[in-house]
Amino acid sequence: MAPLSEFVYHRRVQFPETDASGIVHFTNFFKYVEEAEHAMWRAAGLTVYDRTREITWPRVAASFEYKKPLRFEDEFDVRLRIAELKSKSIRYDAVLTKDGENLAIGSLTIVCVTRRPGEPMKATTIPADIASRISVFRAPDSHS
Amino acid sequence: MAPLSEFVYHRRVQFPETDASGIVHFTNFFKYVEEAEHAMWRAAGLTVYDRTREITWPRVAASFEYKKPLRFEDEFDVRLRIAELKSKSIRYDAVLTKDGENLAIGSLTIVCVTRRPGEPMKATTIPADIASRISVFRAPDSHS
Amino acid sequence: MAPLSEFVYHRRVQFPETDASGIVHFTNFFKYVEEAEHAMWRAAGLTVYDRTREITWPRVAASFEYKKPLRFEDEFDVRLRIAELKSKSIRYDAVLTKDGENLAIGSLTIVCVTRRPGEPMKATTIPADIASRISVFRAPDSHS
Amino acid sequence: MAPLSEFVYHRRVQFPETDASGIVHFTNFFKYVEEAEHAMWRAAGLTVYDRTREITWPRVAASFEYKKPLRFEDEFDVRLRIAELKSKSIRYDAVLTKDGENLAIGSLTIVCVTRRPGEPMKATTIPADIASRISVFRAPDSHS
Repeated sequence: MAPLSEFVYHRRVQFPETDASGIVHFTNFFKYVEEAEHAMWRAAGLTVYDRTREITWPRVAASFEYKKPLRFEDEFDVRLRIAELKSKSIRYDAVLTKDGENLAIGSLTIVCVTRRPGEPMKATTIPADIASRISVFRAPDSHS
Repeated sequence: MAPLSEFVYHRRVQFPETDASGIVHFTNFFKYVEEAEHAMWRAAGLTVYDRTREITWPRVAASFEYKKPLRFEDEFDVRLRIAELKSKSIRYDAVLTKDGENLAIGSLTIVCVTRRPGEPMKATTIPADIASRISVFRAPDSHS
Repeated sequence: MAPLSEFVYHRRVQFPETDASGIVHFTNFFKYVEEAEHAMWRAAGLTVYDRTREITWPRVAASFEYKKPLRFEDEFDVRLRIAELKSKSIRYDAVLTKDGENLAIGSLTIVCVTRRPGEPMKATTIPADIASRISVFRAPDSHS
Repeated sequence: MAPLSEFVYHRRVQFPETDASGIVHFTNFFKYVEEAEHAMWRAAGLTVYDRTREITWPRVAASFEYKKPLRFEDEFDVRLRIAELKSKSIRYDAVLTKDGENLAIGSLTIVCVTRRPGEPMKATTIPADIASRISVFRAPDSHS
């Protein structure tokens, strides 16, 4: 399968995601990106929270710049792509769009760490099968 | 220590708890009651989520009747009491009040279950030390 | 269009809806029912939050009984029906199911109130066009 | 009153803020910073959501770098300071600490916009009384 430029996740704004100012609370944009990430992993035949593996994926950096607000029942897309796929971490770029217009631009970096009872988390190499599957969504310009 | 009629938890409404209609989203009232419950347990020298014990406390019933709304930055109280303390379950009654006025009346029932990896949860007797400590907040009229 | 027995809303559990005990936090079941309600209204050509009308729909009662938990990435249905359609209020019954099994049974009552700046909310008659459209989802046994 | 180096907001982790991986979901760090911001404004005799004024404060940028996780019932501090106070916007820096250790470092930028029914939001000058009151929490090194 050839690399895809991005994964598109379609979503509608739900009521509790709005706040008293009438727009979506800014923290929900991060939830939307994470939902898109998890859908991307499922599309790649993976799950980000795999209880059968001794690894987990904490988020180590997250950011958003907001241009336009979202309101109740708006439909929008999260356009997600892997901007950087390193040995132990992944950085996603995300753009939220509605009717072809950019609403917000964000970034999310996750790291692969060990998850063993009683031991502190420690960064570890991304398993080869995961790196292989997820790289389908790697942006063409991220290839080194 | 003599039984207390109730445990009072003071709280202020935070912005993401409001919705586009300008009031607190109704689901947050359940969060407020649970926060009050956890504070009550701490006041009794306990924690509701004790990783050193092989039990956990799923919620089996929850209800609210809403009389008046809450708005951003409102300060209010959750007045929580143990209405029923049975061998395997606890039922709380809760009243949310602001400036002496009742806003909402709710109920929450939790059950003590086993928590062992690979086994289904099963209702079990509340450990004696927990029952003893938490009964301080049992409503006088709940004594059998 | 003949009355339908229920409206079915399909959903997947998202990660922030889980809690440290590994299952969906109980408050999210109320969010799921409300999402289903809003989807039902859209299916009826309506929106529950209509800024062009001087009415709004506060929730006056909500309850759930929980039988089985939901976990991350589980797919489930909310089976929603109008159990009672009165002149000023609507009561929904909801059943959450997964793979044909009942997980939880809930109820939600909303009331139609006036929404005018500077005036307190006051219960008012449900507009005829809304009652007509939404009654498609009235349970057969709710007819008086 | 002399400029203060920072505003300290104390908080405890609540259960729904955790997720199935056992730690606080990363989006809640943004909620914590906003809570701290609103408490800072109250401490300055202000409210960030003032229905008597024709302005509001959308967030235009938000970011976090995460070093250590938070868990259920952890107590922590948000150390918030105004890093930049411009004519139409404010940028906060935030550090989350627990037991003297840095857990996460973030930034939040808000802009003052007009809020008039039927008109699009437009950036506007921060009212002088607000700028004056809030500048108490301006970091000494942010003075131009």
